[in-house]
Amino acid sequence: MKSTDKRPPRKWGRKPPFRGPATPRPGHTGPAALAVEDGLVRLFGFHAVEAALANPNRRLRRLLATPNAILKLKDAIAARQLQPVESTPRDLDRLLGADTVHQGLLLEAEPLDEPELADLAEKAAAGAGPIVVLDHVTDPHNVGAVLRSAAAFGAAGLLMTRRHSPPLNGTLAKAASGALELVPVALVQNLAKAMQELKIQGIRLVGLDGTAEHTLESELLTADVAIVLGAEGKGLRQLTAETCDQLVKITTAGTLASLNVSNAAAIALHAALMARCSK
Amino acid sequence: MKSTDKRPPRKWGRKPPFRGPATPRPGHTGPAALAVEDGLVRLFGFHAVEAALANPNRRLRRLLATPNAILKLKDAIAARQLQPVESTPRDLDRLLGADTVHQGLLLEAEPLDEPELADLAEKAAAGAGPIVVLDHVTDPHNVGAVLRSAAAFGAAGLLMTRRHSPPLNGTLAKAASGALELVPVALVQNLAKAMQELKIQGIRLVGLDGTAEHTLESELLTADVAIVLGAEGKGLRQLTAETCDQLVKITTAGTLASLNVSNAAAIALHAALMARCSK
Repeated sequence: MKSTDKRPPRKWGRKPPFRGPATPRPGHTGPAALAVEDGLVRLFGFHAVEAALANPNRRLRRLLATPNAILKLKDAIAARQLQPVESTPRDLDRLLGADTVHQGLLLEAEPLDEPELADLAEKAAAGAGPIVVLDHVTDPHNVGAVLRSAAAFGAAGLLMTRRHSPPLNGTLAKAASGALELVPVALVQNLAKAMQELKIQGIRLVGLDGTAEHTLESELLTADVAIVLGAEGKGLRQLTAETCDQLVKITTAGTLASLNVSNAAAIALHAALMARCSK
Repeated sequence: MKSTDKRPPRKWGRKPPFRGPATPRPGHTGPAALAVEDGLVRLFGFHAVEAALANPNRRLRRLLATPNAILKLKDAIAARQLQPVESTPRDLDRLLGADTVHQGLLLEAEPLDEPELADLAEKAAAGAGPIVVLDHVTDPHNVGAVLRSAAAFGAAGLLMTRRHSPPLNGTLAKAASGALELVPVALVQNLAKAMQELKIQGIRLVGLDGTAEHTLESELLTADVAIVLGAEGKGLRQLTAETCDQLVKITTAGTLASLNVSNAAAIALHAALMARCSK
């Protein structure tokens, strides 16, 4: 496999963990305390912060919380030996923007270590569920919702490109409702190359494409499968589609056949779970 | 059936169409031109406006659009004999708030007529798909996404309460991506009473509840079924759950068993379509 760009090739998973960007939100008027270039991730919202506190692999730096939120998470905070910075809701509004539903919590933490592709393939083969591959899905709400379904129905992990994907950060983590701490996420530079790597590991790549001839429902989603989804409207990029072993569509009925990407992922992951259950 | 409040009882569907509220968005700085008390709905975004133009039952008042957007929808605009008000993106930002993805389009229109419950029951029995019942789901993105799945997988219509539901308006319509024009929506004052009415019409009420004993997958979702979903976190209200003929859960695998309501609806509607297909 030749690298198609100028950077030196590197071994999967040997890269340093993702350090940014921690994009400032609209309405962000925070002080220098919330520097966005420090490589930390900001997590807010009850479920996202609660899950991060419960995740021993998540290295924590600082928790800003209202007295009420501190009370609610008392045991989890004590277990991590954190000394929260008592804050008002307005303090957090200032840091995160007034539209952010922070629920009185802002946790600063380090990014999680990324899994190697071989680990994901091994977990999939062992019955953890499919690998989910997202091709340039840029909306953090959608990626968060996909992670949530991945945690609910079982998935070996998520694979997406380092660029053209939303940061593994506040908005995405909030939409994932804690699932960011449960589902390993691998970020790669070249998606087609990573997909080829998965193939070598014995993974069958099933791409979702509304124009495909065969249906998802007629496929048996066995253990060693990856489900590949593209962005709404654009769908799979050509090289991504060509790298798939097969393309299938979800059966629809109506005149409006386009599905939200997180709904499509939920249906595919649920189908894969039912296939595992029926074995 | 006795009315439990002070208002006189009225026949389903005989009430005037929903006239508001058209909530001003955060960042809304628009002039009086966008009065929110006039009972009109504002639709923005390409798919939502395109679908409204194509819907002969949608009475249109005024289209504000950029020259580029007018060009894209030239034929649809001409077919409705509309004279668009040429606007700049900044004009629309001012009217809708700078964060709104309006895609150069703002359509002012009248609310759609509401269907009678008997019509929904008849459509369901005729094989159009389940009736979807939402119990105090307040997030417009979620309700919009449910409408989109309803249009994709087939549904007789949507039933929800007039209060504690988001307005059938811009944000919801944008998330529905055109489906608001395709799926009839009935708004009622008392959900349990409306559900009883559906029962009388021969509809079986299947409620989704994560704590239920039986699974959705073991149920045959026949033609005359309504799928009842509650808000995330809160779930079905007690009376709503008690009014259901049966409660089922969607089979999950992981430690995180809570599903996004639009993902749960998508899975149930897809399952109902597959049941209709296999007949």
